[in-house]
Amino acid sequence: METNLQFERPDGRSIDQIREVSFIPNFAPNATGSVLCSFGNTKVICAATIERKVPRWMKSQGNSGGWSTAEYSMLPYSTLDRKTRDISRGKQDGRTVEIQRLIGRSLRAVLDLQKLGERTLWVDCDVLQADGGTRTTSITGAYVASKIAIAHLIENGELEEDPFIDSIAAISVGIYKDTEILDLNYPEDRDASVDFNVVMTGKGDFVEVQGTGEKAVFSEDQLQKLLSLAKKGCRTITGLQTKVLV
Amino acid sequence: METNLQFERPDGRSIDQIREVSFIPNFAPNATGSVLCSFGNTKVICAATIERKVPRWMKSQGNSGGWSTAEYSMLPYSTLDRKTRDISRGKQDGRTVEIQRLIGRSLRAVLDLQKLGERTLWVDCDVLQADGGTRTTSITGAYVASKIAIAHLIENGELEEDPFIDSIAAISVGIYKDTEILDLNYPEDRDASVDFNVVMTGKGDFVEVQGTGEKAVFSEDQLQKLLSLAKKGCRTITGLQTKVLV
Amino acid sequence: METNLQFERPDGRSIDQIREVSFIPNFAPNATGSVLCSFGNTKVICAATIERKVPRWMKSQGNSGGWSTAEYSMLPYSTLDRKTRDISRGKQDGRTVEIQRLIGRSLRAVLDLQKLGERTLWVDCDVLQADGGTRTTSITGAYVASKIAIAHLIENGELEEDPFIDSIAAISVGIYKDTEILDLNYPEDRDASVDFNVVMTGKGDFVEVQGTGEKAVFSEDQLQKLLSLAKKGCRTITGLQTKVLV
Amino acid sequence: METNLQFERPDGRSIDQIREVSFIPNFAPNATGSVLCSFGNTKVICAATIERKVPRWMKSQGNSGGWSTAEYSMLPYSTLDRKTRDISRGKQDGRTVEIQRLIGRSLRAVLDLQKLGERTLWVDCDVLQADGGTRTTSITGAYVASKIAIAHLIENGELEEDPFIDSIAAISVGIYKDTEILDLNYPEDRDASVDFNVVMTGKGDFVEVQGTGEKAVFSEDQLQKLLSLAKKGCRTITGLQTKVLV
Amino acid sequence: METNLQFERPDGRSIDQIREVSFIPNFAPNATGSVLCSFGNTKVICAATIERKVPRWMKSQGNSGGWSTAEYSMLPYSTLDRKTRDISRGKQDGRTVEIQRLIGRSLRAVLDLQKLGERTLWVDCDVLQADGGTRTTSITGAYVASKIAIAHLIENGELEEDPFIDSIAAISVGIYKDTEILDLNYPEDRDASVDFNVVMTGKGDFVEVQGTGEKAVFSEDQLQKLLSLAKKGCRTITGLQTKVLV
Amino acid sequence: METNLQFERPDGRSIDQIREVSFIPNFAPNATGSVLCSFGNTKVICAATIERKVPRWMKSQGNSGGWSTAEYSMLPYSTLDRKTRDISRGKQDGRTVEIQRLIGRSLRAVLDLQKLGERTLWVDCDVLQADGGTRTTSITGAYVASKIAIAHLIENGELEEDPFIDSIAAISVGIYKDTEILDLNYPEDRDASVDFNVVMTGKGDFVEVQGTGEKAVFSEDQLQKLLSLAKKGCRTITGLQTKVLV
Repeated sequence: METNLQFERPDGRSIDQIREVSFIPNFAPNATGSVLCSFGNTKVICAATIERKVPRWMKSQGNSGGWSTAEYSMLPYSTLDRKTRDISRGKQDGRTVEIQRLIGRSLRAVLDLQKLGERTLWVDCDVLQADGGTRTTSITGAYVASKIAIAHLIENGELEEDPFIDSIAAISVGIYKDTEILDLNYPEDRDASVDFNVVMTGKGDFVEVQGTGEKAVFSEDQLQKLLSLAKKGCRTITGLQTKVLV
Repeated sequence: METNLQFERPDGRSIDQIREVSFIPNFAPNATGSVLCSFGNTKVICAATIERKVPRWMKSQGNSGGWSTAEYSMLPYSTLDRKTRDISRGKQDGRTVEIQRLIGRSLRAVLDLQKLGERTLWVDCDVLQADGGTRTTSITGAYVASKIAIAHLIENGELEEDPFIDSIAAISVGIYKDTEILDLNYPEDRDASVDFNVVMTGKGDFVEVQGTGEKAVFSEDQLQKLLSLAKKGCRTITGLQTKVLV
Repeated sequence: METNLQFERPDGRSIDQIREVSFIPNFAPNATGSVLCSFGNTKVICAATIERKVPRWMKSQGNSGGWSTAEYSMLPYSTLDRKTRDISRGKQDGRTVEIQRLIGRSLRAVLDLQKLGERTLWVDCDVLQADGGTRTTSITGAYVASKIAIAHLIENGELEEDPFIDSIAAISVGIYKDTEILDLNYPEDRDASVDFNVVMTGKGDFVEVQGTGEKAVFSEDQLQKLLSLAKKGCRTITGLQTKVLV
Repeated sequence: METNLQFERPDGRSIDQIREVSFIPNFAPNATGSVLCSFGNTKVICAATIERKVPRWMKSQGNSGGWSTAEYSMLPYSTLDRKTRDISRGKQDGRTVEIQRLIGRSLRAVLDLQKLGERTLWVDCDVLQADGGTRTTSITGAYVASKIAIAHLIENGELEEDPFIDSIAAISVGIYKDTEILDLNYPEDRDASVDFNVVMTGKGDFVEVQGTGEKAVFSEDQLQKLLSLAKKGCRTITGLQTKVLV
Repeated sequence: METNLQFERPDGRSIDQIREVSFIPNFAPNATGSVLCSFGNTKVICAATIERKVPRWMKSQGNSGGWSTAEYSMLPYSTLDRKTRDISRGKQDGRTVEIQRLIGRSLRAVLDLQKLGERTLWVDCDVLQADGGTRTTSITGAYVASKIAIAHLIENGELEEDPFIDSIAAISVGIYKDTEILDLNYPEDRDASVDFNVVMTGKGDFVEVQGTGEKAVFSEDQLQKLLSLAKKGCRTITGLQTKVLV
Repeated sequence: METNLQFERPDGRSIDQIREVSFIPNFAPNATGSVLCSFGNTKVICAATIERKVPRWMKSQGNSGGWSTAEYSMLPYSTLDRKTRDISRGKQDGRTVEIQRLIGRSLRAVLDLQKLGERTLWVDCDVLQADGGTRTTSITGAYVASKIAIAHLIENGELEEDPFIDSIAAISVGIYKDTEILDLNYPEDRDASVDFNVVMTGKGDFVEVQGTGEKAVFSEDQLQKLLSLAKKGCRTITGLQTKVLV
């Protein structure tokens, strides 16, 4: 696999370099756990709230254990052109629905729902500033907020054991100007021909691989290069999550 | 007008003392102007965005000049019990509708819409943390965010003159344990028998007076005491706004 | 406080004179109590229906006693230009929501909900003809319709005691052509710079004071004059309510 | 065709006798034309408003001339158990939709839409008190309200010629306790096995025949008896309409 | 009653001739019973599903026995111009609501709901190809699908007795170019001045008679001719249903 | 890459064997092009309709050329338990939204929208019978229906050139009982720990790779095996599409 390391990105990063990632814990003090997660200029408020009940459909299906679900929204002022609120249009757009389903599935993949007990872990991700990669920033921050919330419950004696069996981190990769690059910002994302979002565990397994070629198709070789970049990115982010959660 | 200055409030404030008010400007960098406005533990993200068009109904009514409108929302994690999003319930509740109409009217009272030109000043107020007085915090911050946005337009040469003819500040007053108090926090608000929201200009005129006695009615004497406290509070807030906007 | 008694109003009234107020009881015979309440050419059908249950949220909050709630609507032919029905637009506008919340709160302020027992007092206000002041006409009529309904229940032996602890009456005041006037009709309301709605009890206490200066702000002196006019108006209306309810 | 003239109806009417029909013109003075139409205890506010434009779909289909459409609603207090408003349930029920389509079609059957010119004749029917036959009362009153509105336009010189080419009247017939009867009130309607609504012109032609046997089917012989009763009823109502419209 | 048998129809049929009617049973194998029912080029997928519960309102009204209800939809590609889905417009149009209420009522008219037991018979009618008469094709097919579903339940020992007390068949008749004709296809329906839908039982009784003259009114004589054609058509269809259900 | 070829699947297929795939062209004759596409017992009606206009947003963004969009729905009787219609629940569920976005993106990936001209290619996919893999069956059939529609336009002289630059086919792969298998039916899909949907072009490039591990995560090795199975499946389906489109 040969990669063009001389490729110049608009913000000067190398093709396999992620933006600066930072976490401000307890950003929303009324949530059980929260964090402001930033990937460069993309900033997402991630808040985890734990309710002492589960959705009705779980009981009607005879499931025991807990549940986790996510909601995602772009605040109207997160984009340069004001984004109309969902409630003004009367419904969530397809993209929002896809993203919140993705966040929820990703969390459940590393959660032992039996250990969570009869609780719902709500995760809210509200984008304060958007510059590409809001869904991967959300997943990365959602995990941190959830871990803070769980730690709080364990501290209070409400939970005995951590229901998380692994960590999750997410990153985007894509083909931009015929080159595979890591962690696309908004101008790169807008012009990319192929766009991948990859969610991986701390142990290096895959949770989700979502790759789309709306403007172009991609070859087996390109697919392999993209997966390789994504693995590198997730490994780095996992390290940063570990540091903030110590 | 005699007031019981010995009255003890849960957080140690005197009856005519507001909470600590603070402003963090440019909190949402993609908005034209923004501020995180705090009254104690009540924190509201206020963002002003200026669109180069006006609503269709204005044109069909033959109005020239600009428009200003506000949207208000409580983020799900702003309260201790997670608050369901409007979009999940399918509509805004009555309280939200009232508050965003109040914010919009208050701004328009001090705006020269002709000087704004054919533009809409959108103001979004999203409550990050709620501890009583979210609507008055929103109005106070909405004015600051709007002034920052207008300053930006004047700097860029898009506007020649500031369309604001005065400033606005807002505060709540109420009757709590039979005593008139200033700037109620959540526990005081929950137990108050009478609840007032007052919006005033920097010059000391009234913009809105909204007083409600759901749990009790109030006498002429009580009304006068409440108005007097509100005037004191608005005067203090006006001073703080002036300092941050220098 | 000096007032310009020479001021000429479009319909010849003096500045502190209300329009002719009339009540036609039992206008909607299938309601428990009803009245057609008129303030001049503003006519509102007010109907009170008593259900033998309370909303679910009351029980889930452990509240005993009853509840009262109001719905307000302008019939499509109440205005000179046909008004589109709420159901055609898919939702209630903000003004409607504000008004029905105001009517409900006002009634609850003078109702002993424990004495009402496990019942809901529904009050419907449908505007048949609109000429300014529909919300104050609605509150004034809502009280009369409710009293008729309660009398009916007491007569039938369903209730032992009247849960109303006082009466309520409502009136609008405003600043029109720089003059404070009482009970604005539609042309006055449209051109007023400041608009107040005041709800008072029969004993002379305040229930709601809602004053708005969308087109202009108002001074302390103007506020006091407006409150004084409102008190006079409410006193007169209370007298007329008492007569019809004998 | 033999009919049991000895059959006793709950309210003492003979099987081929309609209830007392009355019209109170100009009941809603802000409409172009209006009437309160009563069939016994069924009372419907019928209001006709004329707009100087036609729906957009007419133009896009290249139709010239005018349009007429109807809206029907039961006021919450028209029934003994309060009826939830459409807007509270979020949508109109199937019955409401059927009825307003029926009223609109019936009016258009006797309207020369070319003569109406580029106008929309809106007819609103709001049931104030319901005791069976609200849809036929609505159609009967809708015609009277529309004629008053048209007369108004002709008087004002806006229209030269009456676009109505005939009158319409409507009545219900049904099979109750195995007997064909005319103009069912609510208790008869509730227990009827077969229910017909018939709309006829003043000249004696049919506009609509809608017969339903939800609880039972009906024979050819029964169908003929029902049509015969309906013709008698419509003839009587046409006479009463003529008198009020002189 | 004289009829013009020389009248020429666009597709060569005589005025009292129905189109070719066919049934393809078990078209949707996952339904309890299903059929593709065709009247010429009008093709409707009719599927009957039996649920082991009844709607909540039945219980709250204290009704025992079962229920039957229908849903009707035109698939977007059933018409030459693509028809927007109901969900895209956010609600069902009035015509759809009327048709599904008609199908449901017609089935219930020949169903012994007590014998059905605590079950709901859902009937779905989705139009695959539309060429006039989709509602009568739906009713005709709905009966066949329901009978197949019931036979299945009896075979499985879930039901002991057939709850159908008679069969139902439906046909349209109308006045086209001043001539009464049977079973209108789309071009005939579009140009007809009067349009009737008639539902009859196998024994020859009427279930529904719905006749509308939007473009013209109709005389007593015309009404009788239309009913006579409808009876002939229903008799033929009943025979074809009997054959396919053997 | 070693694969367990002895693994026994419930329906006797080998792990790399797809179900019987069949196409019935012109299934919905009123569409421009249509096909009933079956993968075993999964049957989807795919219909392509070409409108001579493009969505408004395209023009407002200054885009020339055409557009393609898809709608997906499960007919209520496609599943063993009747599935409530979207319109009854008032909105599309998240899964439906994801699938129709996926179908639309996949088609656009192989369409030269400039060559399509100012037209919209609507593709409707309605599931008649569901047994796993409805989204991949839909994409596979959507391509065939679209090609038939395009051929029709070329034949009629409306289009000069085929805007499709390649074909697309789709298949699901997954990990079931720890084994990677091709083309999951419903019982396999329900119990799979990892579920992939892969869309590929006839030339062997990737269009979409969507892999989800809700019940388990997956290793790099498993990912590679799944991609290899998917490539084999898509190659076979491409061959079958070519045959039916000759």
